Amino acid sequence: MLQSKLFTKTLRNPPKDEAALNARLLIRAGFIHKVMAGVYEYLPLGFRVIEKIKQIIREEMDAIGGQEIALSALQDKSVWEKSGRWDDNVLDIWFKTKLKNDSESGFATTHEEPLTFLMKNYIASYRDLPVYTYQFQTKFRNELRAKSGLLRCREFLMKDLYSFCRTREEHEAFYEKAKQAYHKVFERVGLGDITFFTFASGSSFSKYSHEFQTLAEVGEDTVYLDRKRKLAVNKEVMGEEALQELGLREKDLEEVRAIEVGNIFPLGTKFSDAFDLVYLDEAGEKHKVIMGSYGIGLGRLMGALVEVFHDKDGIMWPEAVAPFAAHLLELEGASAEKLYRDLQAQGVEVLYDERKTSAGEKFHDADLLGLPWRLVVSPKTQGKIEVKKRSEKNTTLMSQSEVVKLFMSKKN
Amino acid sequence: MLQSKLFTKTLRNPPKDEAALNARLLIRAGFIHKVMAGVYEYLPLGFRVIEKIKQIIREEMDAIGGQEIALSALQDKSVWEKSGRWDDNVLDIWFKTKLKNDSESGFATTHEEPLTFLMKNYIASYRDLPVYTYQFQTKFRNELRAKSGLLRCREFLMKDLYSFCRTREEHEAFYEKAKQAYHKVFERVGLGDITFFTFASGSSFSKYSHEFQTLAEVGEDTVYLDRKRKLAVNKEVMGEEALQELGLREKDLEEVRAIEVGNIFPLGTKFSDAFDLVYLDEAGEKHKVIMGSYGIGLGRLMGALVEVFHDKDGIMWPEAVAPFAAHLLELEGASAEKLYRDLQAQGVEVLYDERKTSAGEKFHDADLLGLPWRLVVSPKTQGKIEVKKRSEKNTTLMSQSEVVKLFMSKKN
Repeated sequence: MLQSKLFTKTLRNPPKDEAALNARLLIRAGFIHKVMAGVYEYLPLGFRVIEKIKQIIREEMDAIGGQEIALSALQDKSVWEKSGRWDDNVLDIWFKTKLKNDSESGFATTHEEPLTFLMKNYIASYRDLPVYTYQFQTKFRNELRAKSGLLRCREFLMKDLYSFCRTREEHEAFYEKAKQAYHKVFERVGLGDITFFTFASGSSFSKYSHEFQTLAEVGEDTVYLDRKRKLAVNKEVMGEEALQELGLREKDLEEVRAIEVGNIFPLGTKFSDAFDLVYLDEAGEKHKVIMGSYGIGLGRLMGALVEVFHDKDGIMWPEAVAPFAAHLLELEGASAEKLYRDLQAQGVEVLYDERKTSAGEKFHDADLLGLPWRLVVSPKTQGKIEVKKRSEKNTTLMSQSEVVKLFMSKKN
Repeated sequence: MLQSKLFTKTLRNPPKDEAALNARLLIRAGFIHKVMAGVYEYLPLGFRVIEKIKQIIREEMDAIGGQEIALSALQDKSVWEKSGRWDDNVLDIWFKTKLKNDSESGFATTHEEPLTFLMKNYIASYRDLPVYTYQFQTKFRNELRAKSGLLRCREFLMKDLYSFCRTREEHEAFYEKAKQAYHKVFERVGLGDITFFTFASGSSFSKYSHEFQTLAEVGEDTVYLDRKRKLAVNKEVMGEEALQELGLREKDLEEVRAIEVGNIFPLGTKFSDAFDLVYLDEAGEKHKVIMGSYGIGLGRLMGALVEVFHDKDGIMWPEAVAPFAAHLLELEGASAEKLYRDLQAQGVEVLYDERKTSAGEKFHDADLLGLPWRLVVSPKTQGKIEVKKRSEKNTTLMSQSEVVKLFMSKKN
């Protein structure tokens, strides 16, 4: 894309009321715009990052048999009354509203209820199970405080998958597959090394639920990490009992701050009880369906990436989620147009800075935007290209064909 | 996809409170589920149709220079007060709600205000224009009546593009390009022949806005159509004056019912006045930015397709938007697995009905789901495949390799 066509520009100052580093950097770089605390708009560069993240998650959810759907935000009160979660004392983050006929509706904070209710149309026999469905859908949560930028929003895009199984064994086998798929997602976006499977509070069905916690000082959670075993325990369930049950020793644990980038939760029969979601087995006997839920907030993951990958000059996107693979800077007196065309012809995603601005401004913007590879075409380098990784200091001079080869090799 | 894995099944009876043919068929076929009047959930088959429509629209919007973004649903009251449209007497379809701090927010019915406000960060000079942005975003509209199925919803996915231009001429040139892009979209989804550019009521900036009206008895609009000239006039602006201005003659016009599947609207400086969105020209003089808006409701378009393309047995999807290209039915005593694999290997999207159910049920479901091509593998046809288009009566016998060739030729 030609940078002169991109309607966003880097901003000198983020909004005064924005305290979070992730949002401050993303606003300055033109990836997002703040509407109010906890509500952000995604501009072209930010939208591209979200789409990259979405595609990675989609591939991993499809790989474990997920079927993609799209549930509604507007909710039927009577459905939520069945589980007791319409009550603001039970679920205290509802945004509620009124229809023209004066009846009440609410905007979904999560989707266990409507999906369980829906599944009653399609699940009757053991032959109808197991079922795994997921969606990328906007959630609305009336948070009291929303001051961590993209880490805690009032409106956000979430991938939520729900599993419906016949038996505890079938549920547990899928739960393990989902866990592995989550590890793959965090590995692919570049957070594999610092994201840990973490035991957190559960329910009557299962003592623990599980979180994926990414190490970051700004994180809202405190977890106790066993680095060798790559396991952690959330402070909320930490104690003698947990240590014993999980086979961990206090002296191996390190107290760290972390961002919860995903969670998976055994629901047991909580919702199939509420909605009487049952199936008949081979012998004609009735059983409650065993459920699980599996969530990843896409905006939060994007915010976590910025918290982890930045320096004083700007963002440093991992290649898998960068809005463009390369930032091609054309300095006064040189032309980068042929290289731009050659790279585009190879399917390389390039942001081509052909603006008539100073070299200083171009370098500043490139660091702030944080695309993984910076390619500088300048009259000083005798037809060579100065190649630099955003995350490294050193630069290399390459010929045009070497640059094209570099990106082709990365694609294969 | 294996049909036994698809969690939806065809339903015998749609909900009693559902009057609209489009929703009744889509619910029976398992494409959507009704939450309440005007609120529907998209199940795997319906989700695939929406994604196909989305991709077609995206390609056409990208082709005219659109930059994709995602604005928020939750809105800042103070921004809407600037245009006067926070007032329920001015915009009477708001869903409003309260934040925890008791301040009011609303869920966007459209996005002129927040986008114009946002653009103040990025538009200052003639060099920053023109800009064209679009999104696929969920709109919320508190409709008094919502009883036309997907044709009029309280929550729906909309593609809305907004243009920002320097001059009336620049605006008009883009407006014409957008008009052509809209014609391409309706052509590609299969409605080109019966969708007409229609003059409708405008504003102080432009006497007319423009709609794309698809002929259908169930449509909410009455339009006067000049078939020869492929133009129509909405009843709301019909009269001597309009006829004269548009160069139409009453005797050439036919009164027809139609569904508004798209609209484009010159906004002039209505919103740049409200938000003081200005740019400096080459001479340093200030001008208001000229805007336009361009909408297509994806669910409504899907509903319109069903209203147009169905018979007594079910839906008949045009190939470009069908959830799968082919429905492969395996009857008892035969195996279609090799053909399924061969088609998949060629990238053909196939729904493979390998369920252990009767031939009657398979044929019934195939007609109801309405995939464009039905391929029957049966022990009666000596290794040949019975090929039938959903929209035609006659069947043809083909060898497996002929079937594969048929679909390969369609891809090229």
